[in-house]
Amino acid sequence: MSVDFEEILAAAARIEGHIHHTPVLTCATLDRLCGARLYFKCENLQKVGAFKMRGAANAVLSLAPAEAARGVATHSSGNHAQALACAARARGIPAWIVMPTTAPAVKRAAVAGYGAEIIPCEPTLVARETTLRDVVARTGATFIPPYDDERIIAGQGTAALELVCEVPGLDWVLCPVGGGGLLAGTALAVRGLLPAARVVGAEPAGADDTARSLAAGQRLPVVDPRSVCDGLLTSVGERNFPIIQRLVHAVWTVPDDAVIAAMRLLFERMKVVVEPSGAIGLAAALAHAGELAGARVGIILSGGNVDLERLPWLGAPGEKQ
Amino acid sequence: MSVDFEEILAAAARIEGHIHHTPVLTCATLDRLCGARLYFKCENLQKVGAFKMRGAANAVLSLAPAEAARGVATHSSGNHAQALACAARARGIPAWIVMPTTAPAVKRAAVAGYGAEIIPCEPTLVARETTLRDVVARTGATFIPPYDDERIIAGQGTAALELVCEVPGLDWVLCPVGGGGLLAGTALAVRGLLPAARVVGAEPAGADDTARSLAAGQRLPVVDPRSVCDGLLTSVGERNFPIIQRLVHAVWTVPDDAVIAAMRLLFERMKVVVEPSGAIGLAAALAHAGELAGARVGIILSGGNVDLERLPWLGAPGEKQ
Repeated sequence: MSVDFEEILAAAARIEGHIHHTPVLTCATLDRLCGARLYFKCENLQKVGAFKMRGAANAVLSLAPAEAARGVATHSSGNHAQALACAARARGIPAWIVMPTTAPAVKRAAVAGYGAEIIPCEPTLVARETTLRDVVARTGATFIPPYDDERIIAGQGTAALELVCEVPGLDWVLCPVGGGGLLAGTALAVRGLLPAARVVGAEPAGADDTARSLAAGQRLPVVDPRSVCDGLLTSVGERNFPIIQRLVHAVWTVPDDAVIAAMRLLFERMKVVVEPSGAIGLAAALAHAGELAGARVGIILSGGNVDLERLPWLGAPGEKQ
Repeated sequence: MSVDFEEILAAAARIEGHIHHTPVLTCATLDRLCGARLYFKCENLQKVGAFKMRGAANAVLSLAPAEAARGVATHSSGNHAQALACAARARGIPAWIVMPTTAPAVKRAAVAGYGAEIIPCEPTLVARETTLRDVVARTGATFIPPYDDERIIAGQGTAALELVCEVPGLDWVLCPVGGGGLLAGTALAVRGLLPAARVVGAEPAGADDTARSLAAGQRLPVVDPRSVCDGLLTSVGERNFPIIQRLVHAVWTVPDDAVIAAMRLLFERMKVVVEPSGAIGLAAALAHAGELAGARVGIILSGGNVDLERLPWLGAPGEKQ
């Protein structure tokens, strides 16, 4: 199955009532700074604090009853873990989450709080995949990957679907790209409803595999990624890349200092809590203000899960950044 | 003129297009914590970051053209100053803001950024009032008080009007009380649309003049107010108090540590930036969870203007709070 616009419409119908229809906010100050009309789709206000809830809910609700009864499993230390645990609880089925022993206690607590069983493993990709295979073999659970999956792509696309339905006549839609679930879903949704609009991915300069892959015409892995955007460090997915190649206008890379400045603007001026990965769309818009001048620009704020003791503009106790 | 429900409807029509229709957010975690269904009216996401924009816009737009042309004036170091400056700019009229020399530079910059003229004065009430009288005598500007004013009360009431129209069947509406503009307006709006619902004011324990005034049956001034809620340190207004006496079910007082805990919950769980005064409604709800059990509760988050370098749960550089 290849995911298409119809799948996004089906996902939207499937997950309605299980997710928040998040608000679209505007801010006159940010409009002035950018010289454009900016419409922020606030997925940081989504359940579990991130758009990941959409894909996880779509995947869990897509399962046939017998399959669902055996539960779901994944490996993740981030927002996908919480989202899958939350979606499984909503359907009343078990969830097993393989998490590296290095995952922060607060993230383990959040996953456990949704009633999922945490399976600890060594913090390597090999250990994560091996442990997950064992869990799946033992339980019969269905593996729900974080982004390289049609059900996930379709679910993530529902955020842009809501945005484009609510704000008429957008010229551009900007969203973060890590594994590419959100960007591929966004591109499919926008193309389906508003084919003239340009979809752009915003990617950390220190984890720019999608931009490099587009330039090379083939998927290149991310190497030694370094960025404050901890949600955007993975390589773009196998199923995600061809959709991005076909439908995305460009991927704009953004240095970390611009991301942090954008994050602070969103806290100060729009009064919303966003994580660095969530603020990268605004950072990209401000860096490309010339190109966007006078346009109507949708920006997806993808998540708000950030440690409030360690906001990046604060020096750590006893030091100055 | 005594302000009534019709005035709130008129204010809503007058200020439409000049203010944000702010979203109502919900949060399953906070519902579980409180044992009730909580609906948060996000006035922290209002223009200038506070509900004050509603009253200021209503007052400025109520002026007759000749009166408006001479401009508006007030004394304030807080959100009302920014709101009046912003509303005056929207109507294209001058604004003079008397601000104590001790006002933070960031607040002066915000007011100046809206094109208002700042008149510095000594940080005493007498100096503020004298300076304001001089400005009004010199310019012919109309004085727009921060809360003790019918146009302001009517404007502030439009937040609860939107909330009650959007969320059917609320049993309670909670909002902060300082000078009482928001609480009086909220009580009038709720009484007009939903007479069975109970309106409650949330007041800092260290600035509890409204609670004491209600108990005494007469307006008592606040004495030596001390609270982290810097927006709620004033005495309840002369025009505000009789409305509150007549229509408000109760005023619940809240200690600062509960306010800070509620503020942090709103950042962490609902991903919104609120100032301490803005979080006091949730703090009051959590402290009275027994009374609210199972009910549908509207809570007005009144503002989000907080220094992001000095969030109250962070130790200051070099010290630990």
